[in-house]
Order: sequence, then structure tokens, then C-alpha cells
Amino acid sequence: MAAPASVSDPARTSALSAVLDDLAASLPHLEVIAPSAETVAYLDDAATRHARRDAASGPAVALPSTADEVQEVVRTAARHGVTIVPRGAGTGLSGGASASRDQLVVSTERLNRIVEVSPLDEVAVVEPGVLNAALNEHLAPWGLFYAPDPASYEISTIGGNVATNAGGLRCAKYGVTRESVLALDVVLADGELLTIGHRSIKGVTGLDLVSLFVGSEGVLGIVVRVTVRLRPIPVARRTVSAFFDTTEAGASALAAITRSPVRPAVIEFLDGRTLANIDRHRGTTLTARGGALLLIELDGYGIDEQFGDLREALHAVGGRVTAETDADGEALWALRRGGRGFDERSWFAGGDIAVPKSRIPDVYAALPELERRFGVEIGSVAHAGDGNLHPVITKPIPDGADPLSPPAELHDAADELVRLALALGGTVSGEHGIGTVKRELAALELSPRSRQAQLAVKAAFDPFELLNPGKAL
Amino acid sequence: MAAPASVSDPARTSALSAVLDDLAASLPHLEVIAPSAETVAYLDDAATRHARRDAASGPAVALPSTADEVQEVVRTAARHGVTIVPRGAGTGLSGGASASRDQLVVSTERLNRIVEVSPLDEVAVVEPGVLNAALNEHLAPWGLFYAPDPASYEISTIGGNVATNAGGLRCAKYGVTRESVLALDVVLADGELLTIGHRSIKGVTGLDLVSLFVGSEGVLGIVVRVTVRLRPIPVARRTVSAFFDTTEAGASALAAITRSPVRPAVIEFLDGRTLANIDRHRGTTLTARGGALLLIELDGYGIDEQFGDLREALHAVGGRVTAETDADGEALWALRRGGRGFDERSWFAGGDIAVPKSRIPDVYAALPELERRFGVEIGSVAHAGDGNLHPVITKPIPDGADPLSPPAELHDAADELVRLALALGGTVSGEHGIGTVKRELAALELSPRSRQAQLAVKAAFDPFELLNPGKAL
Repeated sequence: MAAPASVSDPARTSALSAVLDDLAASLPHLEVIAPSAETVAYLDDAATRHARRDAASGPAVALPSTADEVQEVVRTAARHGVTIVPRGAGTGLSGGASASRDQLVVSTERLNRIVEVSPLDEVAVVEPGVLNAALNEHLAPWGLFYAPDPASYEISTIGGNVATNAGGLRCAKYGVTRESVLALDVVLADGELLTIGHRSIKGVTGLDLVSLFVGSEGVLGIVVRVTVRLRPIPVARRTVSAFFDTTEAGASALAAITRSPVRPAVIEFLDGRTLANIDRHRGTTLTARGGALLLIELDGYGIDEQFGDLREALHAVGGRVTAETDADGEALWALRRGGRGFDERSWFAGGDIAVPKSRIPDVYAALPELERRFGVEIGSVAHAGDGNLHPVITKPIPDGADPLSPPAELHDAADELVRLALALGGTVSGEHGIGTVKRELAALELSPRSRQAQLAVKAAFDPFELLNPGKAL
Repeated sequence: MAAPASVSDPARTSALSAVLDDLAASLPHLEVIAPSAETVAYLDDAATRHARRDAASGPAVALPSTADEVQEVVRTAARHGVTIVPRGAGTGLSGGASASRDQLVVSTERLNRIVEVSPLDEVAVVEPGVLNAALNEHLAPWGLFYAPDPASYEISTIGGNVATNAGGLRCAKYGVTRESVLALDVVLADGELLTIGHRSIKGVTGLDLVSLFVGSEGVLGIVVRVTVRLRPIPVARRTVSAFFDTTEAGASALAAITRSPVRPAVIEFLDGRTLANIDRHRGTTLTARGGALLLIELDGYGIDEQFGDLREALHAVGGRVTAETDADGEALWALRRGGRGFDERSWFAGGDIAVPKSRIPDVYAALPELERRFGVEIGSVAHAGDGNLHPVITKPIPDGADPLSPPAELHDAADELVRLALALGGTVSGEHGIGTVKRELAALELSPRSRQAQLAVKAAFDPFELLNPGKAL
């Protein structure tokens, strides 16, 4: 969980100055901000922000608004050996966009045009800086939507979603970002533009470089255009809640959905600790309804039939199943999306493990012992349809303690959860990515040969390690 | 459309002999067949078979039945610089498994165990030689299925499907092979075993090498184990036919489905020429029902609602829509899957283009002019949900002409169709792959920079070009 190095040596600082001078000459209209107090926010993403909020100066930042400008920026940086950190909205949760003061951040926030929507091809062509939510607002009049919905959808960009292969709530039914990306324009480390993929749904001409770039966290190139696949907005949606007496009972009930023929669009599991925390901080009374909650969205045709089969399956394993009204459903989703029940009075560490979905109950079963061992509280929501859990590890901050210096037990507990996920056949990161904060843990998952293969692919695209060095791999 | 070189020079033949000698010593129980009349069938796959049926001798063939044996075979071949052609069932349609007499074919046909089915994780772990249909037969008692269904599903293997990223009829709804592959074991060119991917549905630890290997046509490694994602068998299925007066009317009607909220599992379009050919060769009377046919499978919940919306959408554009009985539906699917209406009395060339789906009518509109220009007949079915067309170009064989020497016009017409697809924003190959027969055409689609990137990735995995050289890239 080490923060990225932010030391600067004079040679690197001077190379960066030369890049800024060259860009001022070659692209006089491009906004470039020199390292300064103004760029402090670009030092970090949402994972590492808190550790460095008192820095005096940040990295250099270029704000191109065309692919041509991105190419010229990359060429210029490459000429001087200055390394680049590609950045979307900075909402990442793994340090993938963190930068040091002698690096050049290339922000895609001004590459924010929706270039085209084709309802008959069911594709949209967008620039990377378009917000996920903005795309869906734009699509709504056509009756179409873009499926991947990371919890950050209102503030994260399509480019950032592509870089991290973002997941979200609807993935179990509609797939992660990779399943919705058909084609990419990418600026490579030498400044050349690579156009890959296809506008048709199918296409097998050569190696699938599009899938390789999705989730590559900016280490292979900078995405400057994305062709995404769209889907029709379902004819019906219905929120279903199922309360259970205990976390154990609720987690075990997930198998009943798997055994049924119903495949909800969203299956969120909230354990007892999470419900109690939400009640405490939001003034709700969820725990009066039960000790664990399965919050489900059904969509598509036959919504009554789907609900009937789902109710039967969950009722048989002790669930109290309710088809929520639209208003109550929206309120529940707002609680789920709006927070996981902790506040500034607690230290906090988060997680993003995934396990084969039959093993979700094993993760919950292990939490009480981990709480005792590390002296922390652990609650967890799960995107239960695809085995992805987001544990929240907290510990109240005693009076007088430094809120920015959490005790080691929090991160030790988080690491232990990752080891547990791996022992259960799972993975270090379900959807947040590796960035800087999970590099050491990734080494526990990837074999030396796999790591070697990944580095060879990196070297094939970026032999001088100019793009986002030290991230992901 | 050049066939692969099958010349042998003495040095290469002698290296191959040394490999066979070494394997006899190190793996005495491994079946290895020396180049001989017995191995002629391994010279070619289904794309190139006809050109070489009279060869006297084929390549060497190794038939390993464990991953360890594959590793030892690859290590041995690498030591002697002998190149390897990985092979599934040889049903490929692009020459990807074609081999010359101084190569070693590594067949995966004996790696044919279904290792595990986990209904609660919704995954199966299989060896590459398992037939697609055999997996689904095995899964049926669990109420599960593996979605990708290339037309060859009864005779093609999961390993071959992975190597080509096989498509099929159900892709529009359920995705191509890539969307159903979670993890792979791969033997690399140096004989090392690479284990990649995850058993959880989500996972973003490092670069997505699994997606890169899917569709790589054996040029990066030999797949020896596959973890696939399973789905519940839908609660209902219904076959719907919609006949139209003309090919043009039917092709134009596809947009009506796209505009509707219904997303069928399968949307097959059969043009007038195809219907007439089927009638002529199968004794059916499809043309009495119309001049073009949309053959659709709905599945899942709300099948009556789905049918209502679909009927309304297609009726509005002139379709005569029928919900078929189970028996009639099966008969129609058998006609669609069983053949496209040509026989040994015609020369034949096939195609596998894909276009953005709104452009399907443009492809059909161009066919009459191409028929006139090249003096051929062209019919085409289309996997219309994803823009993938399989044109069939035929010309009757005059008395006394050589059935094995089709006139150049057939392939010229096929190439022209590929150029048309590219002009419409489409792709050289929707699902068959590049292999040997589409390498030159692939160069029309891929930019030089894209080609360079693909070769760099190839070099990262197989620097000495030992695996399936000359294929795909």
C-alpha cells in the first residue's frame, strides 16, 4: 500500500521544463499547467488523495482537446524522456492516475465530445473525457443505454472506465466495460495513432488489441476515442428486496438465485454490519426489516414471471421478499449507491476482492474472526451476481489521534482479505484495478511467467516505459 | 488465397526426424505419427481441404493427452527449431490449421476431458479437445448451457472455438467465445505453462491476456485447459418466422427489430437466392411462403410479450409473421443449419464478412450487380443480429470441367465482397478468422501500425516464430 514516489531530481525536473517549453512553441493554444499549487489535485486519484492533501506542488498537466494535441504532447515528452500519466476524472481507487512532480499528466477531461450515436448500429462514438452518466443522459431519448455502471458513474469518464475495465452493478447480466467496447483510437508511446477494433459487433481480423487495451491502466497507450456498444432500455424494471435474519442466511441464499432460472440485472448483497452502519448514519431503519438485505433489480420482459420465480426461490431459503414500489425502490438504491455507512470519525480501508460466486458465503463467514484479530469492524456489500465484494474496514478514531494516520491493522486486515480471496480461488481486484496500491498483492496472484508475459507485452508497446511507469504491472 | 507452402527442404525434414526420435525416447507412450499417407488429413482444415486431397504424405502429428505431454512436445520441437501447428478438429474455415510436411501438428483431440462442472459458480473447466456439442450434452442435466454455437458445433472443439474466437447464431444476445472464456492454461512457445484469468466472473489483475489469446489462432500458444462461463437454459424458447416478398424488403426489415425493444437470441436472414437453392436441393417449398425469410429464436421470460412486440414491429414493415410449432421450428432450423443450398455440381466460394448492422441491406443491394459482373450466383445468409454475413458464391460446373479448378471469378467475387464490407465500415472476417486464406485481405483492413503492434505482441510470446508461423498475422 505504498504511495508512489514523488521525489524529483534536478535532471528530471529540467527535462520536464524542456517539454513545457517545446509545447509552448509547438502548441501555443494548448493549456499546460507547470508544476505548482494549482496542480496538487493531479498528484493523486481517489485512492491516494488523503495521504497528500497538504503537498505544496503537483505535476505538470497538459489539457489537450484533440487527438492531434495528445499525439504532439506524447511525442514531445518522449523526445525528452519525460514519463506521462494519463488521467481521466481522477476517480480511480487504486492509484492508477497518481503522479509525481517530475511527470507530465495528460488529462483527457477536455476530450469530451459525443461524436456520434447510431441507433441502428447500436453504437456510440465518444471521446474519453465524456462522463459515463453524461453518455447515458444523451442516449435516453433514443431509448438506448450504455450498460457498464461503476458506482462512480456520475463523476467518472468513459476513458477512465476503459482504462480500468470498470465494472459496476449491472455487470452480472450485461458484462463489464470490455464487453461494451468495440473499437478504440489510441495514442501510443511514440505518439503514433493506433486505430483498432470494428464497428460491427463481430470481428476477428488479427489479435484482439482492443480487449488488451481495455483494463491496461494507461500503460500501453492513451485512449482518445471509443466506440461503445449500446443496448435498448429494458421494457420494464422492478426492484425487489429480500431481507434475511442474519448475514449468514442472506449470503447462503445467493445460491438459490443461481439455482433458479432468473438472472437479475443487479444483485447487491448488504450484510448486517452495513445495514447497521447505514441506519446509524442515514437515519434509516433497515435493521428493523432484517439482518441482511439482498437488493435486486429485475428487468426486461416477463417481469411478473421473473418476480414469481425469484420470490419462490428466495422464500424457500428464508427470505422475506417484497416487490418495492418505484419510490421505495429508488430510496433503497440511493442508500446502496450513496454510501456504505462510515464517516470522518472513523479510519477507513476499502477492498475490491472477487471470488467464484459460490464462495461468497465463505468470505462473510471469515469476517468476525478477522474483526477480532485486527480489532476493526468489517462490513461488506457485494455485487453478488459476479462474486465481487467491497469490504469496508473501519476503526473509530480516538480523541486526539491523527485522522490521516490510520493504524496498520486496517491495511493488514485489507491485505488478509485479499489473501482469503486468493485462497478461495478469487482475485486481488474485481474492478478497481492494480494501480500503485495493489502491485504487491498482484504478485501473490500472478505467476512469475504471467508477470513476465505481461511485461513483454508492455515492452512491445512502450519499450522505454514512458507511459504510466510503475502502475498496474 | 494462396495455399500454405508445403515444400520441404532436407534440413527441415531432418530436424523433424530428430524431434520424432527425441519424443520416442522421452515420451515412449505418446502417439506420434511420422509424415505419411496416414497424416494427409492433417495438411489442411475445412477451408483448404479440397485443394490437396491427392497429396501422398502429410506432416508429422503428435497426439498428446496431457498438458505435460504438450509441454514436452513443444520443448522438443523448439530445441530443433521445428515449427508447430496446433490443431483442434480441423473444421476451421480459414486455413488456420493447415500444415506443411516438415511441420509438427500438435492435435488436441485427445485432450478431451470435461474436468469439472460447477453449477453454483456457473463455470465448467474443460480440455481443448472437448466438442462444443459434447459439452452442452454434458451440461443439459444441470439446466445449464455454454452459449457460443458456431455452425460447426457438433464437430468443432472448444479449443478450436477459443483459437478462432468462434461466433455462431446466438452471439447477438450471448456474445462470442471471448465473452464466455474466463481462464486459460496455455503452453507457450518455450514449453512453459502459463495460467491466466480467473474463476470469478470479474477480475482486473494486470493485462487481460485471456482475451488476447482468444482468437489468436494458435500463434501465441497452445491452449490446454479452458474455464468457460455457463448460463441457465432459458425458461422458454420460441421460433418465429417472418417471410417478406423480396430480399430487399426482408433486409430492410432488420432495422425494425433494432428499433423495437426485443432482442432475440437468434436472428438469421435468408435471402431469396438461398431460399430457392434450399428448395431446389432439399425438396422444400420455402419460396412459396415468400422471397426472403427472417428466422428468429426468442428465449427467456415473457415469451408471449416478446412475440407480440416482434410481430408488431415486423408486420409494420410487411412481414408475414408466424410463431412456429416446435416441430416446424425445428425443421426450419435444420434447413438453416444443415446447408445453404449448393452441391457438388457447382463450384463454390464462401465468405464471412461483417458490417455495422445498419449496412446489411447495402450488402444485399450490391449482390445482383456482383453476380452480373463476375458471372456467378451469390446467395447469403446473415447472422443479422450482429451484422455477420456468409455469402455463398457458386457457378455450375460445365460438363467435362475440373471440379477442383474453379474459375478465378469465384474468388474475385469473394474478394470484392470483402472490399464492399470494408467500404461499409465492416471487417474482413466476422468469425472464421484469417488463417492463411485471408492474410492478404486482412492487410486491407489493418493499418501498418496495427499490423506492427500485432507482430510485436507475437514476438513478445514467440520470438522465434515456432507456433503456427504464417497464420493470422
